[in-house]
Amino acid sequence: MQVKLIDHTQNPEKVVAAAARLCYSPLGAMEIMDNFVPEQVENFLAKLTELGHDSPLEHASFTFAVEGISRACSHQLVRHRIGVSFSQKSQRYVKEKQFEYVVPKSIQKKDQAKLFDKVMADLQKQYEILLVAGVPAEDARYVLPNACVTNIVITMNARSLHHFFRLRCCERAQWEIRELANLMLAEVQQVAPTLFAKAGASCETEGVCYEGKMSCGKAPTIAELQK
Amino acid sequence: MQVKLIDHTQNPEKVVAAAARLCYSPLGAMEIMDNFVPEQVENFLAKLTELGHDSPLEHASFTFAVEGISRACSHQLVRHRIGVSFSQKSQRYVKEKQFEYVVPKSIQKKDQAKLFDKVMADLQKQYEILLVAGVPAEDARYVLPNACVTNIVITMNARSLHHFFRLRCCERAQWEIRELANLMLAEVQQVAPTLFAKAGASCETEGVCYEGKMSCGKAPTIAELQK
Amino acid sequence: MQVKLIDHTQNPEKVVAAAARLCYSPLGAMEIMDNFVPEQVENFLAKLTELGHDSPLEHASFTFAVEGISRACSHQLVRHRIGVSFSQKSQRYVKEKQFEYVVPKSIQKKDQAKLFDKVMADLQKQYEILLVAGVPAEDARYVLPNACVTNIVITMNARSLHHFFRLRCCERAQWEIRELANLMLAEVQQVAPTLFAKAGASCETEGVCYEGKMSCGKAPTIAELQK
Amino acid sequence: MQVKLIDHTQNPEKVVAAAARLCYSPLGAMEIMDNFVPEQVENFLAKLTELGHDSPLEHASFTFAVEGISRACSHQLVRHRIGVSFSQKSQRYVKEKQFEYVVPKSIQKKDQAKLFDKVMADLQKQYEILLVAGVPAEDARYVLPNACVTNIVITMNARSLHHFFRLRCCERAQWEIRELANLMLAEVQQVAPTLFAKAGASCETEGVCYEGKMSCGKAPTIAELQK
Repeated sequence: MQVKLIDHTQNPEKVVAAAARLCYSPLGAMEIMDNFVPEQVENFLAKLTELGHDSPLEHASFTFAVEGISRACSHQLVRHRIGVSFSQKSQRYVKEKQFEYVVPKSIQKKDQAKLFDKVMADLQKQYEILLVAGVPAEDARYVLPNACVTNIVITMNARSLHHFFRLRCCERAQWEIRELANLMLAEVQQVAPTLFAKAGASCETEGVCYEGKMSCGKAPTIAELQK
Repeated sequence: MQVKLIDHTQNPEKVVAAAARLCYSPLGAMEIMDNFVPEQVENFLAKLTELGHDSPLEHASFTFAVEGISRACSHQLVRHRIGVSFSQKSQRYVKEKQFEYVVPKSIQKKDQAKLFDKVMADLQKQYEILLVAGVPAEDARYVLPNACVTNIVITMNARSLHHFFRLRCCERAQWEIRELANLMLAEVQQVAPTLFAKAGASCETEGVCYEGKMSCGKAPTIAELQK
Repeated sequence: MQVKLIDHTQNPEKVVAAAARLCYSPLGAMEIMDNFVPEQVENFLAKLTELGHDSPLEHASFTFAVEGISRACSHQLVRHRIGVSFSQKSQRYVKEKQFEYVVPKSIQKKDQAKLFDKVMADLQKQYEILLVAGVPAEDARYVLPNACVTNIVITMNARSLHHFFRLRCCERAQWEIRELANLMLAEVQQVAPTLFAKAGASCETEGVCYEGKMSCGKAPTIAELQK
Repeated sequence: MQVKLIDHTQNPEKVVAAAARLCYSPLGAMEIMDNFVPEQVENFLAKLTELGHDSPLEHASFTFAVEGISRACSHQLVRHRIGVSFSQKSQRYVKEKQFEYVVPKSIQKKDQAKLFDKVMADLQKQYEILLVAGVPAEDARYVLPNACVTNIVITMNARSLHHFFRLRCCERAQWEIRELANLMLAEVQQVAPTLFAKAGASCETEGVCYEGKMSCGKAPTIAELQK
């Protein structure tokens, strides 16, 4: 799996801070932008997080190129709907010559990697037999497995990213999307360290677990705190 | 594939008409609702369609149970994000004992149905070998094919449905999602015939094609009309 | 202010429970719907709330007629974007003959009600002078006050409603939208008591406050619980 | 009214073109980005517009500072919900000392500007009387008029912008939001000329009117073209 931040709002932290400040100021955003000094930006962002004033985070947008995730993972990924955009390689239009695939670690652990490789190689053959027989690519792909990799471009704003990291960096998330989320988080922390200083599963960022009865135990749930 | 409308706003046409009328009336919606006679509802809905005043359509909501579509189809389906909600059978949590699958017609036509059945039976076997070896279901599913069927509950409001039908009843849509769209359209036309009198691909409803250079030729594109 | 639930998904609780169950079941939604007994529905809904599995709530939709809220309130209201739809009386197209208005209680308390009534009566006059002079209604309305009432139809799904109640039933919300939220909550609790048994500000429903430093003190914040 | 583009995706055209190309390519987005030459970007964007393949436009995001629009205009503006984010000056928290206001041109034309100014000055006085009497700002604002100006930060992606321009650059849009839309369009055309080469009302961009019976006559409607 490869994840790269390929573009973003140029000054994500300054723009978020200016938008937040605008709400409580008689000044317009142009004047606020002109007079912001870096420390003020940091102070303002820290306050936002404290107060749970999330909406200004939407003004910062981040675009990622993602390669080598499975279609199992992408199916789960595209269920996110708010403040997110996807462009994905089409299996209808692009033929899968020598498709790559993701091998889950549990399969390696259980010594099933060879079997798995064989299944994949066999599916590649069957796919090609169908193409040669005249079946269109959009139908031949019905034999392709969930493991088959896909490429995708993802854009999310900072508010959606925080939500995504909270859900998907959690131990209870499926391992492949958790790996993706962690790589995306590492990328945005490079360009917006303050904005994402407190991002990730809530056990890490707030010391509390919102998964209720499904908690993994890393941090107490609210019910446990209340006892 | 089975599609059934399992619930909906009780008086979808009346509620849409009342909401639309409210925008241009000194009266409130309660009084409007009390005094609407059926013909007025029809007249109002016809006018809305004519004027392209779409937002009141959002007040009517429709919920479908869908069974027996492929995961290839559901992956495409869940790309719709606006005014739509999905609950889908989880391949992480539910084991696929004797999974069912969708066979594309082109595969039958090209005499590849037997091959296809054999591939599916083989994948069922490999999936079970992995489970028996101790691989968790969420990882064993990586061998399962796009053809594997899924169950899903879909809720869309009438505006999203119109958009969905326009895109997905079109000849250029992939055949499985087109079949789904046509069955959903038939369902809603039973309970809201006026609201969906003009729903479907634009060649049918407006006599014009918006697919530009990719038109199938059933109706002229705007560029062709302008010549 | 008058709030009336004018339509909704017919069996909101059953549909939500069936959609939730589908995710973890080999059965399709049709079979699940057919075999659900009322107690199972209640058990399932209680579990959903416990686990924070919110997405199935989106399948239940509720439509309200609201009359007599101020334009100050409606401006705030329409900032909600997700899973909500609005149709509002247009001040561009509908002339405000004898407009009604909302008088904040603080104005009555401070003995300013007479002044306020006079301002409103005066604005009505100025508005009419402009109309008589030939100014179109869409421009004459620029003199109309925030207090001027409006009529609106609101549709929200149960998930959006829960989010709305959590934010807007809170003591820190502005009083007019809080009043609106409380009336809407009372309406939906009539038709879906289990679905909305735990709805409202988090101090009431969870015994914890998420407003951070802005807490009113009714319940401890997470930081306070952690001490 | 002042409108300034204060931030945006750094290479909006390249990122949109790369995301679009990804859908139809065996290559990943990183390689596509590395090898794109400027003319290819232009060709690709032109094709997208032709084919109506709009979703890749969502990867480019634009943020505007807007000052001096009326609350009448902002109320209409914030009705846009999809792919848009707003941060607006709060009348609850910020006191309106010497509020500025928008004077519609029709009021000047009809020689009512003096009357209008007097109404505004009077409202400023009444507002201050309420504040002095101890009425909180969030309630005193109920006397403030629709004309009162507000400051707002707007973020929209390129797809939402195209939709916004199509609706709001149209002659039938209200004049103040049309002015806003035209200024926003001028701003984005500076930094992404190809992406917004064909943006605005459909009479200008496509030579056809979608307003149906409400057409202003600048371009034929589809019904007229079909005759």
